[in-house]
Amino acid sequence: MRALVIHEGGRLVVEDRPVPEPAADQVLVRVTGAGINRADLLQRAGYYPAPPGAPPDIPGLEFAGVVEAVGSAVTHPCPGDRVMGIVAGGGQAEYVATAASHCARVPETLDIVEAGGVPEAFITAHDAMVVQGGLMTGQTVLVHAVASGVGTATLQLAQCLGATVVGTSRSKDKLERCVEMGLDHPVLAPSGFDPAALAGEITAAGGPVDVTVDLLGGPYLGVDVAAAGHKGRIVMVGLIAGARAELDMGMLLHKRLVVRGTVLRARPSDEKADATHLFEGQVVPLLARGTIRPVIDAVVPLAEAERAYDQVATDRTFGKVVLDLR
Amino acid sequence: MRALVIHEGGRLVVEDRPVPEPAADQVLVRVTGAGINRADLLQRAGYYPAPPGAPPDIPGLEFAGVVEAVGSAVTHPCPGDRVMGIVAGGGQAEYVATAASHCARVPETLDIVEAGGVPEAFITAHDAMVVQGGLMTGQTVLVHAVASGVGTATLQLAQCLGATVVGTSRSKDKLERCVEMGLDHPVLAPSGFDPAALAGEITAAGGPVDVTVDLLGGPYLGVDVAAAGHKGRIVMVGLIAGARAELDMGMLLHKRLVVRGTVLRARPSDEKADATHLFEGQVVPLLARGTIRPVIDAVVPLAEAERAYDQVATDRTFGKVVLDLR
Repeated sequence: MRALVIHEGGRLVVEDRPVPEPAADQVLVRVTGAGINRADLLQRAGYYPAPPGAPPDIPGLEFAGVVEAVGSAVTHPCPGDRVMGIVAGGGQAEYVATAASHCARVPETLDIVEAGGVPEAFITAHDAMVVQGGLMTGQTVLVHAVASGVGTATLQLAQCLGATVVGTSRSKDKLERCVEMGLDHPVLAPSGFDPAALAGEITAAGGPVDVTVDLLGGPYLGVDVAAAGHKGRIVMVGLIAGARAELDMGMLLHKRLVVRGTVLRARPSDEKADATHLFEGQVVPLLARGTIRPVIDAVVPLAEAERAYDQVATDRTFGKVVLDLR
Repeated sequence: MRALVIHEGGRLVVEDRPVPEPAADQVLVRVTGAGINRADLLQRAGYYPAPPGAPPDIPGLEFAGVVEAVGSAVTHPCPGDRVMGIVAGGGQAEYVATAASHCARVPETLDIVEAGGVPEAFITAHDAMVVQGGLMTGQTVLVHAVASGVGTATLQLAQCLGATVVGTSRSKDKLERCVEMGLDHPVLAPSGFDPAALAGEITAAGGPVDVTVDLLGGPYLGVDVAAAGHKGRIVMVGLIAGARAELDMGMLLHKRLVVRGTVLRARPSDEKADATHLFEGQVVPLLARGTIRPVIDAVVPLAEAERAYDQVATDRTFGKVVLDLR
């Protein structure tokens, strides 16, 4: 099979690799689409090695495709079924072998290539905002980098749940596109912002925040804590802007806040199955109905993967970039 | 009635004040004992004003005593019942009027004066470690300032729940007394400690920590994060050592930690009723059986309150100092 392989120095090369063998509880999927994530860029740069059990040099944390074969213990899904899911690595190849319990069905309404950009963003958004953040109807959600894949997924899910959304971005154009998608309160985050001032803009626009989905970290932690309302939940999902920041514990106690760190990739298999199950039950029906939709910036052939990676790195994309593996 | 009153400059004076009138849902309690807490010291120093509705100048966040009269809507407790509870202020007086739902019964086995040092420590410990920290049997608990009122309450409750306890203190003598009480792993916290080194000692002694009850804040946050195990919960209850510290969000994400800030005093009435109800159901039976006991350093007559406050401020007490209001 063709697979994208990370070479020394971060060069990306399409190589021929053996098709993986599915274990008893696994399915073999003929991959049609696989989204590119920031974590792939980190792995390419040598900072985020694949966990044990995942292919060490084939990137890709998500896939969509068609089941080609199933292990002896698998009753569901069946060969021919359209599925999508998250993997700890190896998604950017023509075939992946993955646990049957980590596969969700791809509804008719979704393109089978674009669906490869769905699982990571929507599972992360749902898990962070609903499962860990405990969002309730009528509450206020804050999303930084609202125009990203996870950002646009969080925005759409929050709207479905009857929440008010405040979204930040460093780009005015991106914010305008998010407003067209229904973003209630766009807030521009200029570079070198003052956390307290940005928090003031956020609460002036949308009131005290109940749930924050933070993909950036660094100085945004200070924004999150200052903008949070009583018993607010701050879920840290990414650290693109920095891994360390001062925490104002006075506010933490006074407002009775919760700050939670989360990752998907390193979770044990049973927890990934749980997250996939919740995604299939609570998010896939909304995708099937067209109430929410993946925001795809570009679909790029596997042969042009290097260009696609560079595109994601520019920070100029709106939503996801997906590799076409057909 | 006699009441302790904070005067200008923090002078404590016993004065005559009118006995409060219980509202329809309140009881009037003839107070026999009232513990002194760090928050009283802060209030005395002008840093922690009483919330609206509480007497502004009479300190005291907990009491024990005998119900003298009840409001028209109260069915329980009854006049003559021995009760204890937390209040937002005014506990250090001969009478308090408080919500009936904020009263728990004082079991026969407890001295009615010493019982005045029970509610704040044990409700805080139970709420932080069990309700918010989600402690399970067999897990490891870390308690800083283990020889304090909340510390010794946390230690004893953790033991009852089948947890392993690592306790820190800056005093070797206090740690020895805690070991006599059953502390599994004493760890000395020298002044000016290195957070990573202290965390290393903690995990070498007791393994990765599941639940941390942190009464100190400041540099202890770094200790908590470094010593935490996978999915550890850190509950910040006090900030004696500082209100700001750097948070290592890399570890937060990697270990999927939760950092939670909490206070009791400022909670709305229904949440105090909930906490009191859980305390009465889950902690009071253990006190009644003698499985756990309040650790009382001294019982001091109201007339000597100033000396008692100074005693708490020295940091040389072991457990609680309680004012005798009989």
